[in-house]
Amino acid sequence: MTTNYSGLTQLGAKAEIPSSPENAPLETFSNPHPNVDYTVRLTAPEFTTVCPLTGQPDFATLVVDYVPGDRLVESKSFKLFLNSFRNHGTFHEDCTVYVHNRLREALAPKYIRVVGLWFARGGIPIDVVVETGSLPPNCSPLPLGKSTYRGGRE
Amino acid sequence: MTTNYSGLTQLGAKAEIPSSPENAPLETFSNPHPNVDYTVRLTAPEFTTVCPLTGQPDFATLVVDYVPGDRLVESKSFKLFLNSFRNHGTFHEDCTVYVHNRLREALAPKYIRVVGLWFARGGIPIDVVVETGSLPPNCSPLPLGKSTYRGGRE
Amino acid sequence: MTTNYSGLTQLGAKAEIPSSPENAPLETFSNPHPNVDYTVRLTAPEFTTVCPLTGQPDFATLVVDYVPGDRLVESKSFKLFLNSFRNHGTFHEDCTVYVHNRLREALAPKYIRVVGLWFARGGIPIDVVVETGSLPPNCSPLPLGKSTYRGGRE
Amino acid sequence: MTTNYSGLTQLGAKAEIPSSPENAPLETFSNPHPNVDYTVRLTAPEFTTVCPLTGQPDFATLVVDYVPGDRLVESKSFKLFLNSFRNHGTFHEDCTVYVHNRLREALAPKYIRVVGLWFARGGIPIDVVVETGSLPPNCSPLPLGKSTYRGGRE
Amino acid sequence: MTTNYSGLTQLGAKAEIPSSPENAPLETFSNPHPNVDYTVRLTAPEFTTVCPLTGQPDFATLVVDYVPGDRLVESKSFKLFLNSFRNHGTFHEDCTVYVHNRLREALAPKYIRVVGLWFARGGIPIDVVVETGSLPPNCSPLPLGKSTYRGGRE
Amino acid sequence: MTTNYSGLTQLGAKAEIPSSPENAPLETFSNPHPNVDYTVRLTAPEFTTVCPLTGQPDFATLVVDYVPGDRLVESKSFKLFLNSFRNHGTFHEDCTVYVHNRLREALAPKYIRVVGLWFARGGIPIDVVVETGSLPPNCSPLPLGKSTYRGGRE
Amino acid sequence: MTTNYSGLTQLGAKAEIPSSPENAPLETFSNPHPNVDYTVRLTAPEFTTVCPLTGQPDFATLVVDYVPGDRLVESKSFKLFLNSFRNHGTFHEDCTVYVHNRLREALAPKYIRVVGLWFARGGIPIDVVVETGSLPPNCSPLPLGKSTYRGGRE
Amino acid sequence: MTTNYSGLTQLGAKAEIPSSPENAPLETFSNPHPNVDYTVRLTAPEFTTVCPLTGQPDFATLVVDYVPGDRLVESKSFKLFLNSFRNHGTFHEDCTVYVHNRLREALAPKYIRVVGLWFARGGIPIDVVVETGSLPPNCSPLPLGKSTYRGGRE
Amino acid sequence: MTTNYSGLTQLGAKAEIPSSPENAPLETFSNPHPNVDYTVRLTAPEFTTVCPLTGQPDFATLVVDYVPGDRLVESKSFKLFLNSFRNHGTFHEDCTVYVHNRLREALAPKYIRVVGLWFARGGIPIDVVVETGSLPPNCSPLPLGKSTYRGGRE
Amino acid sequence: MTTNYSGLTQLGAKAEIPSSPENAPLETFSNPHPNVDYTVRLTAPEFTTVCPLTGQPDFATLVVDYVPGDRLVESKSFKLFLNSFRNHGTFHEDCTVYVHNRLREALAPKYIRVVGLWFARGGIPIDVVVETGSLPPNCSPLPLGKSTYRGGRE
Ligand SMILES: [Ca+2]
Ligand SMILES: [Ca+2]
Ligand SMILES: [Ca+2]
Ligand SMILES: [Ca+2]
Ligand SMILES: [Ca+2]
Ligand SMILES: [Ca+2]
Ligand SMILES: [Ca+2]
Ligand SMILES: [Ca+2]
Ligand SMILES: [Ca+2]
Ligand SMILES: [Ca+2]
Ligand SMILES: [Ca+2]
Ligand SMILES: [Ca+2]
Ligand SMILES: [Ca+2]
Ligand SMILES: [Ca+2]
Ligand SMILES: [Ca+2]
Ligand SMILES: [Ca+2]
Repeated sequence: MTTNYSGLTQLGAKAEIPSSPENAPLETFSNPHPNVDYTVRLTAPEFTTVCPLTGQPDFATLVVDYVPGDRLVESKSFKLFLNSFRNHGTFHEDCTVYVHNRLREALAPKYIRVVGLWFARGGIPIDVVVETGSLPPNCSPLPLGKSTYRGGRE
Repeated sequence: MTTNYSGLTQLGAKAEIPSSPENAPLETFSNPHPNVDYTVRLTAPEFTTVCPLTGQPDFATLVVDYVPGDRLVESKSFKLFLNSFRNHGTFHEDCTVYVHNRLREALAPKYIRVVGLWFARGGIPIDVVVETGSLPPNCSPLPLGKSTYRGGRE
Repeated sequence: MTTNYSGLTQLGAKAEIPSSPENAPLETFSNPHPNVDYTVRLTAPEFTTVCPLTGQPDFATLVVDYVPGDRLVESKSFKLFLNSFRNHGTFHEDCTVYVHNRLREALAPKYIRVVGLWFARGGIPIDVVVETGSLPPNCSPLPLGKSTYRGGRE
Repeated sequence: MTTNYSGLTQLGAKAEIPSSPENAPLETFSNPHPNVDYTVRLTAPEFTTVCPLTGQPDFATLVVDYVPGDRLVESKSFKLFLNSFRNHGTFHEDCTVYVHNRLREALAPKYIRVVGLWFARGGIPIDVVVETGSLPPNCSPLPLGKSTYRGGRE
Repeated sequence: MTTNYSGLTQLGAKAEIPSSPENAPLETFSNPHPNVDYTVRLTAPEFTTVCPLTGQPDFATLVVDYVPGDRLVESKSFKLFLNSFRNHGTFHEDCTVYVHNRLREALAPKYIRVVGLWFARGGIPIDVVVETGSLPPNCSPLPLGKSTYRGGRE
Repeated sequence: MTTNYSGLTQLGAKAEIPSSPENAPLETFSNPHPNVDYTVRLTAPEFTTVCPLTGQPDFATLVVDYVPGDRLVESKSFKLFLNSFRNHGTFHEDCTVYVHNRLREALAPKYIRVVGLWFARGGIPIDVVVETGSLPPNCSPLPLGKSTYRGGRE
Repeated sequence: MTTNYSGLTQLGAKAEIPSSPENAPLETFSNPHPNVDYTVRLTAPEFTTVCPLTGQPDFATLVVDYVPGDRLVESKSFKLFLNSFRNHGTFHEDCTVYVHNRLREALAPKYIRVVGLWFARGGIPIDVVVETGSLPPNCSPLPLGKSTYRGGRE
Repeated sequence: MTTNYSGLTQLGAKAEIPSSPENAPLETFSNPHPNVDYTVRLTAPEFTTVCPLTGQPDFATLVVDYVPGDRLVESKSFKLFLNSFRNHGTFHEDCTVYVHNRLREALAPKYIRVVGLWFARGGIPIDVVVETGSLPPNCSPLPLGKSTYRGGRE
Repeated sequence: MTTNYSGLTQLGAKAEIPSSPENAPLETFSNPHPNVDYTVRLTAPEFTTVCPLTGQPDFATLVVDYVPGDRLVESKSFKLFLNSFRNHGTFHEDCTVYVHNRLREALAPKYIRVVGLWFARGGIPIDVVVETGSLPPNCSPLPLGKSTYRGGRE
Repeated sequence: MTTNYSGLTQLGAKAEIPSSPENAPLETFSNPHPNVDYTVRLTAPEFTTVCPLTGQPDFATLVVDYVPGDRLVESKSFKLFLNSFRNHGTFHEDCTVYVHNRLREALAPKYIRVVGLWFARGGIPIDVVVETGSLPPNCSPLPLGKSTYRGGRE
């Protein structure tokens, strides 16, 4: 169990929020088990952007499920990447697909799905789902919903 | 991540409620990711119309799921379009299908489903579901129900 | 969006409860979207009849799902039709199937299901489900259960 | 809607509890809609028997789902039939299958399922499920669980 | 409805807890309906054993579902069989499979599944599922979860 | 019911926490029922590690489901193995796959799935699912969720 | 801890259901801790009587809370006392008060409350509460919580 | 923070189950904070005894709340004390008061309440509540809430 | 709104886990609103210690409510203080009171309550509640509600 | 019903996010019912700040309950006031009290309570409750119930 995390510069260091998503690196490290097909979920309930036309803030929860290829995303790097949207103007659809594309590009995963659950604006919430690649055998994302199982005990 | 939203006139401007649904434009903008198949849900829990014969107000929640083609609907425009029904006489079935048809016409989506959940009148709620097109691979609407997942933690 | 509701006589008028279900008209109007396959649900939680032998009142919730052909049922007419059972003696099974048959006859729907959930009598509740026709592609009734979705937010 | 219930002797009359299940008639009446395939559920949460060896009372909830052929069971008759078990010695499995068989014999239904949920004895509850015939197209029992749907409104 | 329960010695008699599971008879009686395929569930939330190495008590809930062949298990006998584990050393996996095997041997059922939900030891609960035979048509175990249905009424 | 647990050294003895996962033995014992296909679930809600770069503690719930071959894992040994991660630096993905691999190596199970539900860091929880082998007939893991069934009684 | 239970004749013996409540003894035994004020709750969810006028069965859950004086009620005796109502005609109010009075007479408790939660007849459930004596300091009945309360088990 | 636990003989040692409750020591250790009034809850959902007349097992959950004086009960000692009831004949009321009295005697607490929630026998669960002493200011037991409470786990 | 946080050394710096609770500083900063009585809750669901006699790990959730005087506790400092218990031997009661005492000493709050909800050991969870000072008018802690409460997130 | 809202400058105008909380006006308007004591709740689930030392974002839900005196807060003004914290460094306690103080100053309410439910940092969520004034008779804030409460919509 020795993960090679050479090249990681953000974890454990004082982290500045990147100036924009385009300037935010998505640091990855070597998948220590490239021969095993498995599924990773990252959930980000603290995501916020601003509207590109009005400058008003938007809020969302992002749920990412992926089956890694040779790389894994480092979670602090992912957090800083998400923080870089804080003062960045973007529409919900574009933003969700962009997060998907950046992860796809950085990770070259076997499969990835990004779900953006955006808070209501004008009384209308918007949810966006982007999914590419195909699930290998023996890989399935957890259900979207509560799943804290504690062993047959309520 | 640069969405081309030239031509959008309503977002960020002071918005008048259109005089009727027929007069309400549904502004769209260019889908920045036309080569990606993904799903967008808009939910409108604040929708209201009037009965064409009695003038009494009706209330509904609309849930729209679509897989975009070349265009996306701008959400403030969609809100104003919905607001235009406020003093407009319409039956539940017609209205729900009309919303579906206007979106289909404006967006030419690969797939679209519109669900109208109408509050009870005379003690009888009415729900209408309209669905056209076919789902591309790797595209599926979220379930109709609660889904605020927060990462395996209750 | 112009529904032809010529011929509707009950909506907006002062409504008398019909003397019996047989005498109660089920007014319909022209489906403004006959080329679209969609689903309509009517739910009636305030339905009451009397037992044909004992004269005791019975209570039920009715749930109707149908895919319209050329006609839609007008909901006030449907309500008055249901009200006509108030002092009408009928058994649960017969009544539920009768409601189904009257709707089928009046609407010639592509598909229809009527569910009657009857309150307990003698400690024994009775539920009746009648379903005819077949579901067109892209048409499915909502689940029997809670479904007030409000956009990915709990 | 005229059900032929000639021959019904128990409904509306003062009812004596039959001396034993074998002596308890299961009165039926003519299915007014023999050409329609539909499902009827009867639920009996107030069912009680006695143990054939110890004479101690047992309690159960029975859930019956059937698709009628030419006959329907009259519910007061069914209640009295169930009441006849009150002082009758029987094991849980036998009793549940017997109720199933008597209904099958009296009704010749296209399909029937009887579920007996028996209260704990010696700390061990027993549940018995008997199911025969096959479901016609467009017929499905309601789920075993809560289902009081009220039209998209909680 | 006359079950042949000749040979039952434990029901209605003063019952001693057997000295060990091996010495505990599993009394059965003739299935009065051998030609009907049906499902029986026994649930035992009061099950306890001791650890074979440390002598410390363990606790579990057992859920048994089976489709009987020619024999049914008598429930008091089953309770006493379970009670015989009270001071008997056994591991969770072995015990759950043993209960399954003893029932299989005594009953020769068409299908049987035994689920053991064991309380945490060292903070780690263990659940064991053993399932053999195949389900006949029209036979399905109840779901593992709450199912007290009371007729569409909460 | 005689499990051969010769070779077990940890159960019932005073247990030291192993110095590292690599040094932690996973003691197994002979599956007393190698000819029966069955499923075992171990749930560990008290799992903790440290970050390899920052030294800060991490917390997770692990859920393991496996179909044993010739060996079973001894649960105290499994607990001590998990305890050995207490001061061990590891990333979430590596750790979850490592637990899977160690169990696979020690048990040679017919099927195994390990789920790691990790608490949020930087507001982002991570869940990892690793699954290998194929399920034999008549073997299925319990659902990830609550399942304390108590016999049809709420 | 040596309870004097001399005089108990029903516990452990084969018990016949008494012919009527009046003929049903309520056996008690000596309170081993007469100097301690404490509260005892007995819950009977399997209680049934018949209507004195129609002969039809009634069902209820009884909840008894008492602070013992010199005597405790033996629970099998209490069960048989309740079983004696099985074929006994009584109204809900009368029955609940009678159970209270018999317990008061047999136990001379410092405080007693009997709650009868009766199933609906004609769609109307009836609940009866009888309470006499006064609570000593440091004694309080558990909350009634769910009225289908089953004794500390969810 | 240095607790004086001299005199503790059971914790960390191989523990034999005591032969009877009377022979089971309740080891205590010095309250390191005798000048602070605080509340301690111990919950024991795995408690079992046998009936003194029939020899049949009984099960209960015990909930103990106390405000310590100069002594605290050592929890392994308390567990072994409870385990000593495993083959010990006792009635529910006596047993619950006895546990209370032993704790009171061993601890001389400022306040103590013992709640015994006993599983149904003959369909009738029994709950016993014993409470002595008075609560100091700023001390209140946690609510009983879910009675199958498992220590901060849902 | 200018908080004086001079003297804070841990927040924003790379933090080492202190070698023991006694060596762990609890950094505080000046309460910017000393004239307002208000309540602060800190919830720590990731708390772990080791048993002083056996060396085995223990887990708890801590819930702290206090009304500040002149000082507030800095939350990273509080986290590191809690982390310092990770390899520290302590009993549940002592530990919970010690956390209370350290906070009282560092903060001199007007009121403070510390609740420790400890995971089961030997099947017995322990909960400790320590409360000192008195609540000023207009100050009341939030309800404990779900004890796995995670700070306003479900 | 004529509300005097002279002086409102933000509602209906294009709104810029104020440069800091200190520079953000809290616009109010005349309470049209100053002689009625009533309660107003504003819930803000989309609140975010940054840490004054690390620059990292924080998230909270704010719940404000007040009984108005002569003034009411205009809700768009309140939203812009909250938005002004977006890039503003502040600690949780200071920020929550500051929001309370600004509202108290602007409104001079008879009573006000501000609750800040802050997302976990370092695994530790913080909740702050500030309450001043006294509740008039017949005024009580709604229960906090679900703290992610969304305004009467489930
Ligand atoms: Ca795989
Ligand atoms: Ca909104
Ligand atoms: Ca796709
Ligand atoms: Ca209505
Ligand atoms: Ca269609
Ligand atoms: Ca049909
Ligand atoms: Ca029982
Ligand atoms: Ca069958
Ligand atoms: Ca444990
Ligand atoms: Ca198998
Ligand atoms: Ca007392
Ligand atoms: Ca009734
Ligand atoms: Ca105190
Ligand atoms: Ca105050
Ligand atoms: Ca008032
Ligand atoms: Ca966190």
